[in-house]
Amino acid sequence: MSCLAPAIEISNETDLIQTFLAPLTRGAPGAFGLRDDAALLTPEPGTDLVFTSDPIIAGVHFLPTDRPADIAWKALAVNASDLGAKGAQPLAYILTLAFPEPPERQWIESFAAGLKAAQENFGGHLLGGDTDLTPGPLSIGITMIGGVPSGRFVRRQGAAEGDHVFVTGTIGDAALGLLAHRDPAAFSGLTANERAFLAGRYLRPMPRLALAETLRAHARAALDVSDGLVKDLTRLAGSLGLALDFGRIPLSNAAAAALAADPEIAKTVLSGGDDYELLIAVPPSSVVAFRDGAAAAGVNVSELGVLRREPGLEIVDSRGRPIKIERSGYDHFSR
Amino acid sequence: MSCLAPAIEISNETDLIQTFLAPLTRGAPGAFGLRDDAALLTPEPGTDLVFTSDPIIAGVHFLPTDRPADIAWKALAVNASDLGAKGAQPLAYILTLAFPEPPERQWIESFAAGLKAAQENFGGHLLGGDTDLTPGPLSIGITMIGGVPSGRFVRRQGAAEGDHVFVTGTIGDAALGLLAHRDPAAFSGLTANERAFLAGRYLRPMPRLALAETLRAHARAALDVSDGLVKDLTRLAGSLGLALDFGRIPLSNAAAAALAADPEIAKTVLSGGDDYELLIAVPPSSVVAFRDGAAAAGVNVSELGVLRREPGLEIVDSRGRPIKIERSGYDHFSR
Repeated sequence: MSCLAPAIEISNETDLIQTFLAPLTRGAPGAFGLRDDAALLTPEPGTDLVFTSDPIIAGVHFLPTDRPADIAWKALAVNASDLGAKGAQPLAYILTLAFPEPPERQWIESFAAGLKAAQENFGGHLLGGDTDLTPGPLSIGITMIGGVPSGRFVRRQGAAEGDHVFVTGTIGDAALGLLAHRDPAAFSGLTANERAFLAGRYLRPMPRLALAETLRAHARAALDVSDGLVKDLTRLAGSLGLALDFGRIPLSNAAAAALAADPEIAKTVLSGGDDYELLIAVPPSSVVAFRDGAAAAGVNVSELGVLRREPGLEIVDSRGRPIKIERSGYDHFSR
Repeated sequence: MSCLAPAIEISNETDLIQTFLAPLTRGAPGAFGLRDDAALLTPEPGTDLVFTSDPIIAGVHFLPTDRPADIAWKALAVNASDLGAKGAQPLAYILTLAFPEPPERQWIESFAAGLKAAQENFGGHLLGGDTDLTPGPLSIGITMIGGVPSGRFVRRQGAAEGDHVFVTGTIGDAALGLLAHRDPAAFSGLTANERAFLAGRYLRPMPRLALAETLRAHARAALDVSDGLVKDLTRLAGSLGLALDFGRIPLSNAAAAALAADPEIAKTVLSGGDDYELLIAVPPSSVVAFRDGAAAAGVNVSELGVLRREPGLEIVDSRGRPIKIERSGYDHFSR
């Protein structure tokens, strides 16, 4: 945060809401300028509504010292990513803020700027919410409401034997980025640009909303990679299985350089979370159309393998030797 | 909590969700058995959706030692109350739980039982959510989704000069109940039944959903009394004003007895929160129909006065002497 101006605390809830948050409603009539106890949404005919709610908590999902604009971006991004994985587009969001102490004006100004940047990128607007003081850490609750043409929601379950499994973008950057963000001395073999790239992938995840239409048209099942590749692949496979050649996992140049310097990085790539890329099961007959749709949407997709009847995820290195990982990914009940 | 069985911690998130929470979806297809990253709702044609999100936090809105079933009830009740004030009926809710440590099975069992009892009373069902561990206190986030016939949402703003102001039920019980709940020695002049009644009003607020249809038909504006009578009356009045005779405020027998023993209780009645009764502005031409509708719905309503052009709330006692209160009600940014 800037130190140019003296820190000024927000004195009351109404000030915070009306000065900084109400503009984010963009005048939506159902938000009532954030002056009602509830908000109103009139769904378009032919639209199903999709809901997701992933709170982020200081010390769990972000560092209390992170820039408020980055925290705000992430709060929206993790929810927009869930919508994108279902083939939905963001329509609106509800925001609940629990502050350990009344925030300074500069803090909330930066936070609101981050929300504004994110909602302009992802679509949707603020619809309502609530603020409180808490004896605990800063906690940001988002419930995001998306729209999908009726009957076109893309489920997590339902992938079938023979489906091709695709992943968007690159994997592992965010988990490496968290390490780079926390410890400036980490990855000393990388360039400053590479370290900044990794940290940016952690701080400012970019949900793959551009792929929503292609998912609705061609995906049998999908989810986003929030808890780690292995864990989320296992969820997509359900009762089926996959033999995954590690060499097929798409890596950024920065992650590839980190891996070249330290082979143990492979485990971080496999089980680190927070990438917010998408895992997609595509029936064989739709693979060409899916690839074409992704290319038209400007989203890189890589094929990881084909779902087989034998359950479980088998991971092998470039020489076909099995890779074992002790921890498959992030469990919200483990520290 | 019962001490009959040894305390058993919930070992993972999936166990908690599938064993205790999934049954609360009542098989709603859009909840996908809580096995997807998002939930789906297909609105009925002709229905507007109403959203409210009031989290409750241990140490702020409830005591960590409260019965889990009471905590769960309250989490749903405070949100259902907001919907009721808008003339809406609960359809579904999203639940986010942040635990300081993995809960014991008995705790979550009781908590789920409280949710079940509440949703059976209020309507609606669990649609989705999220669980996390937090370094802070137990925090329960609810986003409740209600339905209202298109165009019939009852706003907080818009009350007009000459509108009659009504309040449901009795006022002050919950604030007194909090005192009785925290300190068994409080209100020693009351009977055990009276103290239990007051504590029950705090622990198990009953949203006035039965009045929703009457509100839609006859109210010009409404909100619920969550932050205190004076504060919420001021919100309803907006730029208008009201002369409030204290004697018109409906009191339970228990609150009346407490007031008779200690006249200072008047301030608690005026500024205490958590009653979750409704304040309603009714145009003069609709007063009779409103009273009839409330009677048919089985909800007691009392008239507090008529909105006048002169702004501000003036409170007088039975002899016409002004009553001053230093604190008008609960501000979420004050402790």
